[in-house]
Amino acid sequence: MAREPHLSNSSSLAGRNCLVLGAGGFIGTNLCHRLAGSGATVLGFGRNRKEDTFAGSRIDWRQGEFRDSSTLARAVEGQHVVFHLISGSTPESSNHDPAGDVESNVLTTLRLLDLCRSEGVERVVFASSGGTVYGVPQTVPITETAHTDPICSYGIGKLAIEKYLGLYKHLHGLDSVVLRIANPYGPFQSARRRQGVVAAMIRQALDKKGFEIWGDGEVVRDFLHIDDVVNAMIAAAGFAGPARVMNVGSGTGLSINRIADDIEALIGRAVPRTYLPARPADVPVNVLDISLIQRELDWKPRISWQDGLARTVEWARA
Amino acid sequence: MAREPHLSNSSSLAGRNCLVLGAGGFIGTNLCHRLAGSGATVLGFGRNRKEDTFAGSRIDWRQGEFRDSSTLARAVEGQHVVFHLISGSTPESSNHDPAGDVESNVLTTLRLLDLCRSEGVERVVFASSGGTVYGVPQTVPITETAHTDPICSYGIGKLAIEKYLGLYKHLHGLDSVVLRIANPYGPFQSARRRQGVVAAMIRQALDKKGFEIWGDGEVVRDFLHIDDVVNAMIAAAGFAGPARVMNVGSGTGLSINRIADDIEALIGRAVPRTYLPARPADVPVNVLDISLIQRELDWKPRISWQDGLARTVEWARA
Repeated sequence: MAREPHLSNSSSLAGRNCLVLGAGGFIGTNLCHRLAGSGATVLGFGRNRKEDTFAGSRIDWRQGEFRDSSTLARAVEGQHVVFHLISGSTPESSNHDPAGDVESNVLTTLRLLDLCRSEGVERVVFASSGGTVYGVPQTVPITETAHTDPICSYGIGKLAIEKYLGLYKHLHGLDSVVLRIANPYGPFQSARRRQGVVAAMIRQALDKKGFEIWGDGEVVRDFLHIDDVVNAMIAAAGFAGPARVMNVGSGTGLSINRIADDIEALIGRAVPRTYLPARPADVPVNVLDISLIQRELDWKPRISWQDGLARTVEWARA
Repeated sequence: MAREPHLSNSSSLAGRNCLVLGAGGFIGTNLCHRLAGSGATVLGFGRNRKEDTFAGSRIDWRQGEFRDSSTLARAVEGQHVVFHLISGSTPESSNHDPAGDVESNVLTTLRLLDLCRSEGVERVVFASSGGTVYGVPQTVPITETAHTDPICSYGIGKLAIEKYLGLYKHLHGLDSVVLRIANPYGPFQSARRRQGVVAAMIRQALDKKGFEIWGDGEVVRDFLHIDDVVNAMIAAAGFAGPARVMNVGSGTGLSINRIADDIEALIGRAVPRTYLPARPADVPVNVLDISLIQRELDWKPRISWQDGLARTVEWARA
């Protein structure tokens, strides 16, 4: 028997105060636009000036460092929903300074959670990492109950934050939903900031530099279009069921070489490939099982890989 | 088919340099004595003066704070095996300051692991917490593959350290074994430092103060005599198999009320009981499944509860 998903009605964020932490980043920019479009009152928080990105929109912008508690406190004031998308590291960079990683991610998030408690925030939606918290999987697709043995500090930090969210719910009733997001791609993903392999490879192809591929290109990842990620985040904000930690992915895996092939096909020419040494933080395969979120949030990926990649190449060209 | 446990020979620590971090504490004091007795060269490290405790033994003592990197670096120098037993908090206290907990436990341990890497330490044996890393169990006894959702910051910190040990093995080849230890009891456990309910209750009974019991006394814990814990730690130091994380417990559960009954029986008189409000960090039940360590280390609990409790009452009286 199919049962009803636990959902508030879809307009539940209209008129609600939503804070997006990391609003200047790839996911944050897309999320802010969608939230504003759905009638939410949106405050974007980030370290860089982004007034231009949000000019003409109904999104307020607050520039600040995540570690600056007083600026953060003013941003959290009066918010109903807080989307926490900030990370001070990448999977690869985090391994060079695990202690710095813990300080900039876990400790700052603990201060955020204390602010959310005292401000009476109703829900925190946390962008965890489906690509790193599991480490090398024993089976794919990976369910939420699989072992979590990250091979990068970034993944350990995300996992620690997930556990602290659970603790704050237990101790203080602070409500949260954790989304373990696969590899998102799409508009506003930067090719330079090592945010994502798809953006980097499209840029390499368009700039005629040639693909630079870490390892033999046979590592497999789960790519999801940003619009689908944003849909999941908004659904998570209004979710009323008991599930606390959910995978968000496409449910299918693609190799890096396959991405190269597909970009070549879209731009209509071959691109030379340089294979670099494999990186220690790269797991050989990562594909997420998405049955839980499909069941609980009535969410599913709506943008196919072929369509999403074509749109992203168009955006990068423009 | 029974297979051979992966064990180095039992005298493997003779002549080896062993550093015990937290040597002045309950587990550390017992471990140091046993290591010295087995012919290891033992350096005990801790924050308080413990020369008296170890006077006349072959144990060297180094007084220092765990967060003092230069003192710690000198202690790690030339060591083969490092036993890491230090914790800057208790399950209950950790929830009052999670950020301080992360700083004093996770960050300091990361510095230790960097020192162990650069000094070429052969193995780290880490005392994790079987009583807190699992949180509220879905089934008992709890296997190592069970969910880990701690309801105290102490447990989250232990879990994060476990993950970092896995990462340092992956990235740098630093070898380690994690023991998720149940509730140890026995000689040298302090009744005052909230180290253990058994020591506290024996003291309350002998001092005729009456038992002070958090909650209704029906919470169930897995109690293990310190000699069995020390046996497991020494076996873990010489273990050559692939298992990295193992439970160490008795495999059976006892309620706090049952402990009160047993202490009364041993001292031959009734002790008044005061029931205090339950504490948020207390899980209702915790009993560890010990099949993995029994199989891998050829270890088993050798001291029965009745015998161990009787010896501990004797020790407390003396």
